[in-house]
Amino acid sequence: MHQPDRVMLREVAPRDGLQNEPPVPTGDKIRLIDALSRTGLSRIEAVSFVSPKAVPQMADAAEVWAAVEKHSGISYSALAPNRKGVERALDAGFTAVEVVVSASETHNRANIGRSVAESLAELPDICALARERLASVEVIIATSFGCPFEGDIAPAQVARIVAAAEAAGAGRVAFGDTTGMGTPRRVTDLLDAVQAGTDLPMLMHFHDTRGTALANLLTALDRGVVEFDASVGGIGGCPFAPGASGNVATEEVVHMLHDMGVETGVDLDALIRTAGLAQEIVGRPLESGVLRAGPRTSLSPRP
Amino acid sequence: MHQPDRVMLREVAPRDGLQNEPPVPTGDKIRLIDALSRTGLSRIEAVSFVSPKAVPQMADAAEVWAAVEKHSGISYSALAPNRKGVERALDAGFTAVEVVVSASETHNRANIGRSVAESLAELPDICALARERLASVEVIIATSFGCPFEGDIAPAQVARIVAAAEAAGAGRVAFGDTTGMGTPRRVTDLLDAVQAGTDLPMLMHFHDTRGTALANLLTALDRGVVEFDASVGGIGGCPFAPGASGNVATEEVVHMLHDMGVETGVDLDALIRTAGLAQEIVGRPLESGVLRAGPRTSLSPRP
Repeated sequence: MHQPDRVMLREVAPRDGLQNEPPVPTGDKIRLIDALSRTGLSRIEAVSFVSPKAVPQMADAAEVWAAVEKHSGISYSALAPNRKGVERALDAGFTAVEVVVSASETHNRANIGRSVAESLAELPDICALARERLASVEVIIATSFGCPFEGDIAPAQVARIVAAAEAAGAGRVAFGDTTGMGTPRRVTDLLDAVQAGTDLPMLMHFHDTRGTALANLLTALDRGVVEFDASVGGIGGCPFAPGASGNVATEEVVHMLHDMGVETGVDLDALIRTAGLAQEIVGRPLESGVLRAGPRTSLSPRP
Repeated sequence: MHQPDRVMLREVAPRDGLQNEPPVPTGDKIRLIDALSRTGLSRIEAVSFVSPKAVPQMADAAEVWAAVEKHSGISYSALAPNRKGVERALDAGFTAVEVVVSASETHNRANIGRSVAESLAELPDICALARERLASVEVIIATSFGCPFEGDIAPAQVARIVAAAEAAGAGRVAFGDTTGMGTPRRVTDLLDAVQAGTDLPMLMHFHDTRGTALANLLTALDRGVVEFDASVGGIGGCPFAPGASGNVATEEVVHMLHDMGVETGVDLDALIRTAGLAQEIVGRPLESGVLRAGPRTSLSPRP
């Protein structure tokens, strides 16, 4: 199997993680982002600019962003569902924004209240606006590996969105396994459908809902993907299965990659301490195995 | 990546799972084994013959075995730590026994109270005894991917035990990731060290303590391994990390393999129902994602 020398991780706990947990105080969000900024991570998804009615967890996005430490080596990003959100993100000073659209028509309507075609129609304008403000745009394609309402999603449908994103002027595409329906076979099928058709950098976002996150990541590595999302402590549940895992834990990704000799730039011990902070903030035991059991190098006293 | 058409799974919840949970009634063990026998699994590790003082969970092994349904298409096996346990297993009527020895000296002493050399010295006699009784012997090499006391285990040390098992007349070797220290790199390193030196069939036994179980399994598949252990519901904790996962859940393995087009012979729905029974028996919420969230094909009502 092919493996790269280095992988780029984006930490999504402050946004994707906390958006799927009961609301936490603004100060805790700032503490979490600041702690993450000191672990060696090079990208952090900090907040989203969404309707505070629909997503009260992110109502203080501008306040959080104004208060956090900005480290020069880190690219901080904000997610938005539409042009209005992107404007708010740019106004707040972000130079990297993510726009989300679902590969599934049903999920896009449930998630952001409009059709896929309406989402795609707005992309050229969003990209032009960002370009004026010297910001980059990533298009996140949710439900890329399956939709909780529609089931399997044809890879060709995902490829059409990639083509639309590229034509609009986006700088990167991300494939979201929104409810953990991905398997190595789905990763392979998706890459077969999209890799030849675009020059855009690609990122994959896996959930560990059904235990496959690291197997999926390994499959993607073998196919040349070197950018991944992950959430410290694995925070952020699965929206359609109460109690089930959501995002793959960043420390589980780093732990595996480092043992394989793949660099991430992250200090694993500092990251595990930050997972402990995340656990304290959300106030429930987290599911990350590396948080609970420690890394494989953490030995027991000899009997 | 290479993938086979078919994989052989051995279910270990009745033995390895229940041995690492608080004791449950004999009747529940019988119900669990009988339910597993109806899922399409072709191998089940039913009980172990160990000291009832050291392992009270298995004190009723002969009674359990006498009472369960014996399906003609299923190979039922018993684990033993030594010649005495093997004799008891053969006397109880088993025709497949597993003898466990650790690759780690410290772990072997902690687990079965003697040196690795002492364990290996008994193997030829055990194999001869089994042969007389027309039974097969598998040697399970615990801590093959790392030891919780000693840390990394040299693959050459595991290879020496494989050679001793083959010379003694064993019919199969199994590599146990006893405390979930395995990663794809450790699987590759181990197979590099052992694959060329033996003709014995090989089985791998992964724990999901640090999230790597299915990534490890995928790596082993790519290298031609087609036999794996798993435990329904993921029952059986990690002995050195209270609250952390132990054995990989059988339904997570089957769920991923079937979506990849790899046959197992198992009825996934029946297996998930049996994971629910296992959860009822051990009386705590289990960690299996496929049990909690359902398979990827289990959709939500459209909004």
